Amino acid sequence: MHLFEMHLLFPILELLALAGTALSRVQEVHNVLELTGQKASREFSTDVANGKYTPPEEMDPQFWYKIADEEIAKRLALPQLNTDKAKNVIMFLGDGMPLATVTAARILKGQRQGKTGEESSLSFERFPYSGLSRTYCANAQVPDSACTATAYLCGVKTNIINIGVSAAVNFNNCTASQDPANRLTSIAEWSQDSGKSTGFVTTTTLTHASPSGAYAKTANRMWQCDTDVTKYGVDASTCIDMATQLVTQTPGKNFEVMFGGGMGKFLPKTVRDSHGKIGERSDGVNLLARWQALHAKGALVTNRKQLLSLNVSTATNIIGAFQSGLMDFHMDADASYQPTLSELTEVAIKKLSQNENGYFVFIEGGLIDYGNHYTQAGYALDEALEFEKAIELARNITDIKDTLIVVTADHGHAVSIAGYPGRGTPILGVNQHDTDINGVKYSVLNYAAGPNQYLDENGQRIPLDDILGPDDAIMPSYIAKEIGVHSGEDVGVWASGPQSHLFTGVMQQSTIPHLMAYASCVGSGKKVCDN
Amino acid sequence: MHLFEMHLLFPILELLALAGTALSRVQEVHNVLELTGQKASREFSTDVANGKYTPPEEMDPQFWYKIADEEIAKRLALPQLNTDKAKNVIMFLGDGMPLATVTAARILKGQRQGKTGEESSLSFERFPYSGLSRTYCANAQVPDSACTATAYLCGVKTNIINIGVSAAVNFNNCTASQDPANRLTSIAEWSQDSGKSTGFVTTTTLTHASPSGAYAKTANRMWQCDTDVTKYGVDASTCIDMATQLVTQTPGKNFEVMFGGGMGKFLPKTVRDSHGKIGERSDGVNLLARWQALHAKGALVTNRKQLLSLNVSTATNIIGAFQSGLMDFHMDADASYQPTLSELTEVAIKKLSQNENGYFVFIEGGLIDYGNHYTQAGYALDEALEFEKAIELARNITDIKDTLIVVTADHGHAVSIAGYPGRGTPILGVNQHDTDINGVKYSVLNYAAGPNQYLDENGQRIPLDDILGPDDAIMPSYIAKEIGVHSGEDVGVWASGPQSHLFTGVMQQSTIPHLMAYASCVGSGKKVCDN
Repeated sequence: MHLFEMHLLFPILELLALAGTALSRVQEVHNVLELTGQKASREFSTDVANGKYTPPEEMDPQFWYKIADEEIAKRLALPQLNTDKAKNVIMFLGDGMPLATVTAARILKGQRQGKTGEESSLSFERFPYSGLSRTYCANAQVPDSACTATAYLCGVKTNIINIGVSAAVNFNNCTASQDPANRLTSIAEWSQDSGKSTGFVTTTTLTHASPSGAYAKTANRMWQCDTDVTKYGVDASTCIDMATQLVTQTPGKNFEVMFGGGMGKFLPKTVRDSHGKIGERSDGVNLLARWQALHAKGALVTNRKQLLSLNVSTATNIIGAFQSGLMDFHMDADASYQPTLSELTEVAIKKLSQNENGYFVFIEGGLIDYGNHYTQAGYALDEALEFEKAIELARNITDIKDTLIVVTADHGHAVSIAGYPGRGTPILGVNQHDTDINGVKYSVLNYAAGPNQYLDENGQRIPLDDILGPDDAIMPSYIAKEIGVHSGEDVGVWASGPQSHLFTGVMQQSTIPHLMAYASCVGSGKKVCDN
Repeated sequence: MHLFEMHLLFPILELLALAGTALSRVQEVHNVLELTGQKASREFSTDVANGKYTPPEEMDPQFWYKIADEEIAKRLALPQLNTDKAKNVIMFLGDGMPLATVTAARILKGQRQGKTGEESSLSFERFPYSGLSRTYCANAQVPDSACTATAYLCGVKTNIINIGVSAAVNFNNCTASQDPANRLTSIAEWSQDSGKSTGFVTTTTLTHASPSGAYAKTANRMWQCDTDVTKYGVDASTCIDMATQLVTQTPGKNFEVMFGGGMGKFLPKTVRDSHGKIGERSDGVNLLARWQALHAKGALVTNRKQLLSLNVSTATNIIGAFQSGLMDFHMDADASYQPTLSELTEVAIKKLSQNENGYFVFIEGGLIDYGNHYTQAGYALDEALEFEKAIELARNITDIKDTLIVVTADHGHAVSIAGYPGRGTPILGVNQHDTDINGVKYSVLNYAAGPNQYLDENGQRIPLDDILGPDDAIMPSYIAKEIGVHSGEDVGVWASGPQSHLFTGVMQQSTIPHLMAYASCVGSGKKVCDN
């Protein structure tokens, strides 16, 4: 009833705004809204307080004092003089993973274990240090995965859609991208120059924007094979496609590990790949055969069984192409056919660890972003949980004394955990504790843009109780678009290992590789080894 | 045109879902969405890349290398052995200030200076350390300002709407709130017990949820004066209202500084306050007269002139009540009458600094939350900028060697910086670089819930170019509600000064006061002074 009254108040706002009294318009708005707000909050307190569950053990203040004691003790136990050098650096990238997704994934993790969920922790959330990364690109308030990959792997912010070239290069401008002054090097190359092994793992494709930041130089992230370059009206013999760059150019050709999907970009249209689909290349080149010719003892693997039976000591280099295009979402995947991100991570680290000089590896949870784009939060969160499992495994099988692990996201997604859901509310479900002005409940997760607004013919929201629930349910959004959109707020950075204490405070995303280079004594900048 | 094609693809999704082929439903959805996504991203790259501005100086990679060098040098210059003790602790709280609001405020700050904006920094973003705070409450996945105040000031998570009592207390339960086992103490009290001076500053009211965490014990944040207690069916002589607690009970009665609005809660209905409105109390008690009787050399100030002409050396205690209710938004305020948050902060610090034993002060930018609730992002961001100015002033007039400053938020708001706006896009305006499926542009800032959906009679979004622009414009939202809603993702923590290095990593919000107590050697837990 009070909600109805509240709704009636709103026309007053417009009347006042039109009335032209002595008060300024903003003051009028403020006054009316304050009145409304006060009334609302009076009822609000009753509404949001009632019917909520409190875990009994949390009623005792000592429960919280104990957690605080532990959290303080953990911080005090850290070495204050962190002078270790990072022999190895593992960078984990959650693509399109805003803090809202991190928090929601944590809750889902706990709820899958039968708990309320909020009290859970992702593996990397237990890392000792955290910072905030500013994600804008040279020409973009809200970035894409290409310019951000250039920032966090090459240490330079560039224009949206660019990879490995500076902001002097405009979109699709082949000539500018060939100018040596505009071409960048990545921490993968710096690491190779120091005699380290390098590689990458992704759940997307080998030529997707994020991992490409480690090896590609391109004025258009879509130039993944020669057919793509031509489609954009560019001469594919001048501007070499990213798949070819990976196989034939420095630093890609030296990678000892390359795991992902996207086999089609490496094979001609005349050849069927291991997954039954024909290749995408028009130039007739079989890049995988070429790669094999360059690496006599290199191994090509295309499914889980091959990956897990691989002898990492005898294979000098490994390329894994586990799907024709994107790898399948973990929830959809044939688990006997497609390896998990943890399995890929384990093999990658085992292989790269054989170098006494250490390694740099980039590991991406790339489908978090796809889940969020589809506004299918269930996919996004499940992929985030696969991501945190891989990080836990990486921390467990490496030495914290010599291996720096940095976890971050490239950009956010316009999604929020909204309203006042009670403790333990299913994170993929409907908020049972609040409604809109028509008394219709709303979902816990809401996107700014996406494919389904769930409005009836009068533009009113429809109830979602029978719609949400399945893991693949599409969450509601406001702006009708084919897919959801990125967001521009800072993303988190979580770090563990040598020099991880430097990964705190607010930083430019482009500073991250320089910090990793400092810690592992690679590149041309300052190094901890100089001390 | 491509957008139209994309839209046509969506019905396929439903057809496939109904078809019941051999594929699982999730696989079907994935396949169709992947197809759509691939097509979308093909056109997307052209769409989002074109027509965007790049600042010329940022085209040179050295521009970014130099920033990285500076950011690394700044981190390396920090003392690794941070053994200093915090004589003084200043806690700054941005109410309802998610990272999206912090990033947007930073952009607005730069744009007000005629720059593109994204490259700007808020004062506290330059602090050396940052962490992430988990904001859920004992019975709430997404919290309110009351249970969160209990967390960050008393160090215990409680139920939503509660202040200063444990989660054993249910909403509005007077009896339970009186049980000594359920009553908490705050860092203000711990600091008083160590001989420190204490106080608080807020732009809301003296009895608003956030500052009340420092002194109140209540089963309902709305019990601000006796009239309020009675309204909720509770005996006001048993469960003492918060205004009375502040004036007559420990630790409130010992506060040397209390600045905010909300004068009406302290005066009877028979008395007109300094701002021309009658009091709200039914018990006939003039709490300000009572306060004056308890503090013979105390000073009551009610406007800017009185505040700035005050002699902080002769007044033992100062209570400032600058409005009858909430203070005015900075944008609406009569600047000659209502002091700014910076002015309040300066007087508070000057007064509290007179104690050789140091002080604890809580300073709230409380109207950020109101701006976000009204989905008037212009207000929220302007208040955030007032907040960051006050923090800059506080850092400038205190000694970084003996004064710890901790900045955080209590909870988020369901707002996002959405889509792919180009560099320098007015943060309060319309995204010029993307549209919905009908070709209608959308705003940069979007709320999940709020008063205006801006839909036409067919439920389609209307263009906002002529609506956004004024500082008080209401931003669009999806869920029709009187006011916007809080969000549940982690919020930032930024710290500077003694022991500030501890404020990193992911932490329970309830650990924050224990960390501040450790640094300033107050309370019953571990202290840096014990070392």
